[in-house]
Amino acid sequence: MPITANNPELKSWLKVSADSDFPIQNIPFGVFLTKEHVVTIGTRIGDYAIDLGALQQLNYFEGIELTDDMFMQDTLNDFISDGKRTWRAVRNRIAELFCESNETLQKNEKHREIVIFNLDDVEMQLPVLIGDYTDFYSSKEHATNVGAMFRDPDNALLPNWLHIPVGYHGRSSTIIPSDIPVHRPMGQTLAPDATNPTFGPSKRVDFELETAFITTDANIMGEPIPAGEAEDYIFGMVLLNDWSARDVQKWEYVPLGPFLAKSFASSISPWIVTMEALEPFRTAGPKQDPEPLDYLKVEGDQAFDIKLEVSLKPEGGEENLLATSNFKYMYWSMSQQLTHHTSNGCRVNSGDMMGSGTISGPTPDSFGSMLELTWGGKNPIKLSDGTERKFIDDNDTVIMRGYCKNDEVRIGFGEVCTKLLPPYQKK
Amino acid sequence: MPITANNPELKSWLKVSADSDFPIQNIPFGVFLTKEHVVTIGTRIGDYAIDLGALQQLNYFEGIELTDDMFMQDTLNDFISDGKRTWRAVRNRIAELFCESNETLQKNEKHREIVIFNLDDVEMQLPVLIGDYTDFYSSKEHATNVGAMFRDPDNALLPNWLHIPVGYHGRSSTIIPSDIPVHRPMGQTLAPDATNPTFGPSKRVDFELETAFITTDANIMGEPIPAGEAEDYIFGMVLLNDWSARDVQKWEYVPLGPFLAKSFASSISPWIVTMEALEPFRTAGPKQDPEPLDYLKVEGDQAFDIKLEVSLKPEGGEENLLATSNFKYMYWSMSQQLTHHTSNGCRVNSGDMMGSGTISGPTPDSFGSMLELTWGGKNPIKLSDGTERKFIDDNDTVIMRGYCKNDEVRIGFGEVCTKLLPPYQKK
Repeated sequence: MPITANNPELKSWLKVSADSDFPIQNIPFGVFLTKEHVVTIGTRIGDYAIDLGALQQLNYFEGIELTDDMFMQDTLNDFISDGKRTWRAVRNRIAELFCESNETLQKNEKHREIVIFNLDDVEMQLPVLIGDYTDFYSSKEHATNVGAMFRDPDNALLPNWLHIPVGYHGRSSTIIPSDIPVHRPMGQTLAPDATNPTFGPSKRVDFELETAFITTDANIMGEPIPAGEAEDYIFGMVLLNDWSARDVQKWEYVPLGPFLAKSFASSISPWIVTMEALEPFRTAGPKQDPEPLDYLKVEGDQAFDIKLEVSLKPEGGEENLLATSNFKYMYWSMSQQLTHHTSNGCRVNSGDMMGSGTISGPTPDSFGSMLELTWGGKNPIKLSDGTERKFIDDNDTVIMRGYCKNDEVRIGFGEVCTKLLPPYQKK
Repeated sequence: MPITANNPELKSWLKVSADSDFPIQNIPFGVFLTKEHVVTIGTRIGDYAIDLGALQQLNYFEGIELTDDMFMQDTLNDFISDGKRTWRAVRNRIAELFCESNETLQKNEKHREIVIFNLDDVEMQLPVLIGDYTDFYSSKEHATNVGAMFRDPDNALLPNWLHIPVGYHGRSSTIIPSDIPVHRPMGQTLAPDATNPTFGPSKRVDFELETAFITTDANIMGEPIPAGEAEDYIFGMVLLNDWSARDVQKWEYVPLGPFLAKSFASSISPWIVTMEALEPFRTAGPKQDPEPLDYLKVEGDQAFDIKLEVSLKPEGGEENLLATSNFKYMYWSMSQQLTHHTSNGCRVNSGDMMGSGTISGPTPDSFGSMLELTWGGKNPIKLSDGTERKFIDDNDTVIMRGYCKNDEVRIGFGEVCTKLLPPYQKK
């Protein structure tokens, strides 16, 4: 029987702890830098980073149609362009190589040394060259909370929200992987009672707990993708912390939307977890009422049961869990987002990234931003060290985690962990 | 005396008609495809396209520090990364080679055959890989007109407008060069008296008369660019038709700004005219009142006297001039736009594109969109063939042109010419 990566029975000959996000059933894709300054495409099992470029050079992918340097690149874009069948073939081959019954690589110490790294010995890079980044706004609870605070509590949801997966174009050039610190941005703001704006460090730096999906080449320019086909063009998902400067946002966002309040940084988890690995966690999303227009209608379960959490760690202190949420709360599904995105003929390429928007749940402990958790700063959060937070302080670290779990297997994203530094000072 | 490209006395041994946008003083940069399917970086003199890749291979750039394949690439990004001194050295060398007193290439028929193409024999490509595209909203007249129509005539300009060069992130993947037709987009709209939206072809497809500038690598992430240095990071300019679906825009744009109303297509003129070539046309912009905040203060003239015009040509019919405007009407300068853009630490890379926003002048015949010219469709425009237009009809071609002119020289952009096709039909 051929080995398939998703088989829950499979065990690896590499050590994988019981609570690991990365059992042999996950096989995510990423890009890392070795201590020898070699950049390569890799996967992860347990706490090991596996060099797929080296595996390819050693002929372990024989029989799978791949260009010669497929995994010796510094981005996954070309691999993602190859499409679903190749992704599956490569994942299954990796599962085969690393499952405990297979001794080929297991017994070849020389090859193991070339191929397998301790995670601590590699530096994760951005996994794809992101041509275009779109951020949606698809959690009803989040949109309602923000609408109530920024506009009108009685009409929190704008009239278009239940008909359109509202979204906007974001900035690609400042998307960074986990563990890269971010400077508190400077910006123009209008103080509550002021008539004139001032320029200075943002006083309301916030996180947004999101996921994002990475696409493959979906269409030619002009061609819409039917809703029923949209999933074929989604390679996988990452966690996304869409950093936001709320005071800057409030002053700048009319009428063209958030701009500098967002473009100073967006942090993602470095391993792209494939949709195939997430398939066992497919579940029903919220009922959509009113019914979406025909072009947005999709059949079957469109949500995924991905548990999400966000913590804050003050400088030298311990982690404080701020909120737990779940990707399944999303009102608009990824298929609907991608379908809507291409409905006007907009071209979607390999490596494009589409964020979910902040994922807030129904209860206050599931809100995905400080803005919502402290209700605009009105209800500060008390940390375990006795200090309080309305928003994020300098040198705080924000950590987001996400994972799926059933009786058989746990598939996770690891984390996106980012320290907020004081404003940039020219050296 | 060394030859400098901007010397107005210079004449080329290539034929250049008196009203050409491309005398030897222009020397813009572009990318073209030859009939032999070779992609190369080139420049233009008169109606000749000049293959800079071939010139480099024939050693005509000797003495200028360039990587071996600098001009044998399919984008200008690497050349633009090389910075101002290299741009100048290359332009001056081209001016030297093609000025009438220089016989080196002029008398070498074999080399001329390899290097010089009739413009009709090449196909212009997108000149840069655009990592990020930002569109500003910097014409006060345009913002006032749109504010009056979409919101409130008595408070047309939003409170932030006079303090911030308002802008938003656009979509890079659908930026196309001149002569590529565009399909009328499908989209979700809410009819004037309807309670529920519908999905169908946009009924209000519009152009926006804009320019855009192309940047070089400007900063590391986190680092703002001081206003006084911003110009150093601007390589050159193009004409931009920022296609818009007004009915889609009206329904979708709150609260996150325009999205699918814009992302179906943005068309640019294919030759990037360098800031150096435009330097003789520097002029004063509008007085800024209130004074901008310190970080946005710039010294000296920041505007450029670039005459702009937009025409419409119905299928099989003749061109109708719709409006003439001027880049100098822009309230916020390119320096201020770029400074503001990086003020939060946002990274700007080689090949990023930043649009001006629609450039409308003070009089109704200088409005840069059908939305303004017909005042939301209320005052249709009568064409020479007797038909009327509220917005753009299927098979209409929109042509934008731009040029600078003084007593000595004319420096122009050529045109961006785009036909609007009926909605996409799957073949």
